[in-house]
Amino acid sequence: MAVVTNLDPKRRKTTPLDDLTALVSDDLSAVNELILRHMHSPVELIPQLAGYIVAAGGKRLRPVLTLASAGLCGYRGENHRMLAAVVEFIHTATLLHDDVVDESDLRRGLASANAVFGNKASVLVGDFLFSRAFELMVEVGSLDVLRILSRASAVIAEGEVLQLQTSNDTETSEQAYLEVIKGKTAELFAAACRVGAVVAGRPPAEEVALYDYGMNLGIAFQLVDDVLDYSAKQAKLGKTVGDDFREGKITLPVVLAFRRGNDEERAFWRRTMEDLEQADGDLERAQHLMARHDALRDTVERARHYGAIARDALGLFADAPVKRAMLEVIDFVIDRDY
Amino acid sequence: MAVVTNLDPKRRKTTPLDDLTALVSDDLSAVNELILRHMHSPVELIPQLAGYIVAAGGKRLRPVLTLASAGLCGYRGENHRMLAAVVEFIHTATLLHDDVVDESDLRRGLASANAVFGNKASVLVGDFLFSRAFELMVEVGSLDVLRILSRASAVIAEGEVLQLQTSNDTETSEQAYLEVIKGKTAELFAAACRVGAVVAGRPPAEEVALYDYGMNLGIAFQLVDDVLDYSAKQAKLGKTVGDDFREGKITLPVVLAFRRGNDEERAFWRRTMEDLEQADGDLERAQHLMARHDALRDTVERARHYGAIARDALGLFADAPVKRAMLEVIDFVIDRDY
Repeated sequence: MAVVTNLDPKRRKTTPLDDLTALVSDDLSAVNELILRHMHSPVELIPQLAGYIVAAGGKRLRPVLTLASAGLCGYRGENHRMLAAVVEFIHTATLLHDDVVDESDLRRGLASANAVFGNKASVLVGDFLFSRAFELMVEVGSLDVLRILSRASAVIAEGEVLQLQTSNDTETSEQAYLEVIKGKTAELFAAACRVGAVVAGRPPAEEVALYDYGMNLGIAFQLVDDVLDYSAKQAKLGKTVGDDFREGKITLPVVLAFRRGNDEERAFWRRTMEDLEQADGDLERAQHLMARHDALRDTVERARHYGAIARDALGLFADAPVKRAMLEVIDFVIDRDY
Repeated sequence: MAVVTNLDPKRRKTTPLDDLTALVSDDLSAVNELILRHMHSPVELIPQLAGYIVAAGGKRLRPVLTLASAGLCGYRGENHRMLAAVVEFIHTATLLHDDVVDESDLRRGLASANAVFGNKASVLVGDFLFSRAFELMVEVGSLDVLRILSRASAVIAEGEVLQLQTSNDTETSEQAYLEVIKGKTAELFAAACRVGAVVAGRPPAEEVALYDYGMNLGIAFQLVDDVLDYSAKQAKLGKTVGDDFREGKITLPVVLAFRRGNDEERAFWRRTMEDLEQADGDLERAQHLMARHDALRDTVERARHYGAIARDALGLFADAPVKRAMLEVIDFVIDRDY
C-alpha cells in the first residue's frame, strides 16, 4: 500500500486550486506582504485581531481569482496585487461581521475572532479593514475599480440582510435562497475576477465574461459548501458538520427536503429549523431525510449547472495554462469531498 | 412674564446652529431627499432600519458643515449635496455600530435601532450604508474626496478600537483620551468640512483651514458632550444623565477627577468605573467629586481652547454670513446647557 500511495504523490497532494495558486505564487507572496503591511495601525488591537484571522488562513481563493483573472487578461503591471489584497480585506471584514451576526465560536476549526477578542472588537476591526480597503483602492486610483467594489460591498450587505430576513423560514424559495448566496458569496467572487480585467484595461466583453465566471463559480462554491455541512463524508474526515442545522440556517438542501417532504417531515423541519427545538438524533434525521429526497445530490446538480455557465463564460479567452487552471477549479469546487 | 418671553421669541427659539442650518436650508432639503432615495434597497429591512435611525433625526450637524464649508468656499454646483449625504451615511453607519458595541438601548431618548431591530441587523445595515456611501462618492467621481473620506473612516474605526482598549481604565491619560475623541468624533467633522473645499476646487491652504476648523470644533463638541453626561442642569431639563458613568466610559471629567483625587476617591473611581460595581448614590458622588475638583468646569475650559483654534482656522476666509454663523456655532457647541 505504501508503494502505491507513493507512486504519484502529486496526484494525491495537489488540487486544481493548488495548481492555480502555483501559477500566481509570486504575485500571491507579494499580496500577503501587502496584507500584512496595510493592516498595520498604531492601535495594537487592530493588527492583533486582523493578524489572527488573516493568519488563520483560508485558501486566499478570492485574491487568487483576481491575480489569475489579471493574468488571463495578459496584465503585466503590479496593481493587481493591491487589488487582490483589497479583495481579501473586504472578505476578511465580512467574515468578522458574519461571525458576530452568526454568533459563531469557530471558524475553520479554530476559535473565531469574536470568541477570542469579543464581538465589539470584531465589529470595529471589520470596519477598519473595510475602510482600509477603500483607502488602498484610492491609492490604485481607478474609479472603475472603486465602482465595482463599492457596489459589491453594498450587494454583500444586502445579501446578508436578506439572509437574516429569511432565516429560520422553512418556506424560503429556491429563488430567494439563490438571491441570498448571490449577494453574500458570489458577488465578491464576481467582482474579484472582474477587477482583473479592469486593471488590465480590457474591453467590456472580457470584464463581463470574468464577472460571469466569478458569479457562477461563487454560486456553485456556496451550494457545495451548504452540502458539505450535512455530508457524512465530511464527518468521517473529522470536519464539523451540522453548523447550519444547529443555527437553523435555511440552505438549498433544506429547501429541497422541505418541499419534497410529507406533512410529518415538514413538521420536523419546522420544529428543528424554525423553533430551533433540537434533540439528539435530529441532525441524523435531517441527513436521512435529505438522502431520501436526494436533496444533497440535487444541490450538487444545481452547482454543476452554475459551473457549466462559469465554464462557458471563459470561452472567449484563448487557451493558456491559467485558463485551463481556472476551468479545472470549477470542477474542483463542485467535486470537493462530500 | 408671558409678555417678556414673547418679546423676542427668535432669541429664545433659534440657536446659532439653527442660523447656520437656515443659511443652507435649500441644500439641506436636497440632502435629505438624497439620503432617503439612496438608502433604498429591494431588501426591505434596509430602508426600514435606516429610515428609523435617519428619521430619529439629530441635527444633521455634519452635513450642514459640509454644505456651509462649500458655501464658504464659494461653491456654486450641486456635488456638495451628495457629499453631505455621504457624510451623513458614514455617520449613521458608525452610530449603528456604536450602539451595538456600547450595548445601548437608547439613542436621543428613543429606543436605539439595535434595541428595535436587533444587533445583527444593525451591524449589517451599517455595512450597507457604509458601502453605499462609497458608491455615491464614486458617482461624484473625485479621488481626493474618496481619499479623505476613506481615510476618515479608517481613523474613526481606529478611534473606536482605541476607546475599547482604554475602556474602564481609570488611569487613561488626557492625551490618550484626546486620541480617542479625535478619531471617533473629530475626524469626521474635519473631513466633512474639508470636502467642502475640495468640491469647490480651492487651494490646499483652505482645505487645511477647514479641516482644522472641523477637527477642533469636533474635539470641543465631544468634550462638552462628555460634560453634559454629568451635568446637573441636563438632569433638570429631563435629559438622560449618567450613561457614560454606568458604562464605565472613561471621559475627560473622569480623567481629571481621578488624577486630582485622593486615594479614597481613586478607590471609588476604580470600583465604579473599572469593576462597574455601582450602587444608589454613586452617580451623585461622582458628580460631587467632579464639582470638588472642577473637573467639569475645566473640561469646558479645554473645549474653549480647541474652540479658539477652530476660530483662528477660519481667519483666512473673508467675512460673510456663513463664516459668521460657523464661528458662532463654535461658541454654541461649547455653551450648550451644562
